[in-house]
Amino acid sequence: MPDFEAAPVNPAVRLASLARTDMAGVEALIAERASSATAVIPAIAHYLLDAGGKRIRPLITVASARMLGYQGRGHLSLAAAVEFIHSATLLHDDVVDDSELRRGKRPANKVWGNPQSVLVGDFLFARAFMLMVDAGSMEALHVLSRAAAVIAEGEVRQLAAVRQVATSRAEYMDIIAAKTAALFAAAAQVSPILAGAPARVEAAMETYGRELGLAFQLVDDALDYGGVAVELGKNTGDDFREGKITLPVALALEAGGDDERGFWVRTMAEGRQSPDDFDQAVTILKRHGALDATLEAARGHAARAVEALDAAPDNVWSQSLAALAEFVVERAY
Amino acid sequence: MPDFEAAPVNPAVRLASLARTDMAGVEALIAERASSATAVIPAIAHYLLDAGGKRIRPLITVASARMLGYQGRGHLSLAAAVEFIHSATLLHDDVVDDSELRRGKRPANKVWGNPQSVLVGDFLFARAFMLMVDAGSMEALHVLSRAAAVIAEGEVRQLAAVRQVATSRAEYMDIIAAKTAALFAAAAQVSPILAGAPARVEAAMETYGRELGLAFQLVDDALDYGGVAVELGKNTGDDFREGKITLPVALALEAGGDDERGFWVRTMAEGRQSPDDFDQAVTILKRHGALDATLEAARGHAARAVEALDAAPDNVWSQSLAALAEFVVERAY
Repeated sequence: MPDFEAAPVNPAVRLASLARTDMAGVEALIAERASSATAVIPAIAHYLLDAGGKRIRPLITVASARMLGYQGRGHLSLAAAVEFIHSATLLHDDVVDDSELRRGKRPANKVWGNPQSVLVGDFLFARAFMLMVDAGSMEALHVLSRAAAVIAEGEVRQLAAVRQVATSRAEYMDIIAAKTAALFAAAAQVSPILAGAPARVEAAMETYGRELGLAFQLVDDALDYGGVAVELGKNTGDDFREGKITLPVALALEAGGDDERGFWVRTMAEGRQSPDDFDQAVTILKRHGALDATLEAARGHAARAVEALDAAPDNVWSQSLAALAEFVVERAY
Repeated sequence: MPDFEAAPVNPAVRLASLARTDMAGVEALIAERASSATAVIPAIAHYLLDAGGKRIRPLITVASARMLGYQGRGHLSLAAAVEFIHSATLLHDDVVDDSELRRGKRPANKVWGNPQSVLVGDFLFARAFMLMVDAGSMEALHVLSRAAAVIAEGEVRQLAAVRQVATSRAEYMDIIAAKTAALFAAAAQVSPILAGAPARVEAAMETYGRELGLAFQLVDDALDYGGVAVELGKNTGDDFREGKITLPVALALEAGGDDERGFWVRTMAEGRQSPDDFDQAVTILKRHGALDATLEAARGHAARAVEALDAAPDNVWSQSLAALAEFVVERAY
């Protein structure tokens, strides 16, 4: 008899399947609220929104709401708002980073121009707040507007740290807590607010989101150097090219000698790179186990995200949220 | 005996004097909420916020609230929020316009860079929404977030119209209704909402703000060519240099022949300008009475702003708001 034992299903896929109806509602809201009589606005908005993003942030909002038995529609508006804030941030990041390529694709500002990217980002940001108003919770509005301010602060700090090889691990963690984890935390926290869950559940979900966000960013930063199973090739090296000191590099700088320090100073601080330098960077990172250590840190944060769910009801939604946290790390292998 | 009859007092000054205590509260909020541990943020924010702006938008919010007998503190938060939205827009406009000078001053992006201007604009925008949350009115939040989206749409349309000599008067009016008047309208509308005024008063104040905003922008556009009492010199010519087709130019294009059209095409559509061209532009505008006609249009909108106040209580506040509308036009003479 054939073995019908199911192959392990990607938990992001399982969660997306569970949340299918809700996520269809979120997509409809996204399409509706990205519309404008000014044609270039939806064109740019959809260039980002349709770029194959995994909608992980709105998925967290939707799943958290369902986990807590929320029966209204406000979670759909907040989920769409979270995705709009994320998209607005990406549009503005492109202007800030000024790269020709981002994950192997031309950024919107290189297609339409900086002015358009700035203004359409502003538009999506404003529409995000209109969506929050629809959800009707002043407390959720407070959480998301505070997150938006923290994100901007984190981006400013990251900008100041670019090409600074003295960036410490602590400074790096502060930056990603602000620029990435704050929105994940808010995405998870607004649902217990909507559902009227107890304060300790709200705090636990905020922790879940924050820890998941830290894990997500650490994995992203490792993947930018190819993860641990490095296949050199496309979609890697953005941070190296842009002189962003992420955890792998900070760890290698701590562990390495003066020779290596000279390499990082030339390539990242001074931005003088030759075609072989990226491979050399990966070689150095692997020599010190810096990618492994980064993923180990990610695993720790993912574990704390899962632990936080102990305060939440045990059901298919919380199980999927736990699996999602584990998957975020596993995608690096 | 000497004549002690008071000289006519600038009504913006009188209004500012009436609203002195409230405006001090607004200033305190602005300083408090522009603060950040990331030092470059308050530095850039204050570069704009302390640039000698007249705080006309928050003044409208404060005066409208007092006119309606509002006794709370929410109008201070909303007034500060309105100023933050305005400042965020200015920061992003600088990036969009990419000029070396703005009203005779170096724009923030030329001092600190585009990335910093984009991100600090985002920060102020987020902080604006936090201030709105403090005011506690979901309806006011709706009005202001909608205005923010409309402003971004207006800016995108203006960007598309730059160097387009075919821009019609109607298109220009649509653009300034969105990019400028929407925030004035919202600044006036949120106070009746806070004060719980009847819907007809809220509608009237929205009209007051919108019409005042249109008058304000028309006057600004005339002043950019020196107003009617042209003294050529500093602080004029930004629009001409940037190829922005404002009402004076649209009117001159309508009225002029092919020769003049050639002048506008070369200088504004193609951006090829020699040092004498600005004086030549002013000469053409005056030949067709285009500056007078622009100010006449401004006067009409200011009159409609004053008319709208008929629906509001007659008191020292509404009288000052009426005088403010008239002053906005008179400053051009």
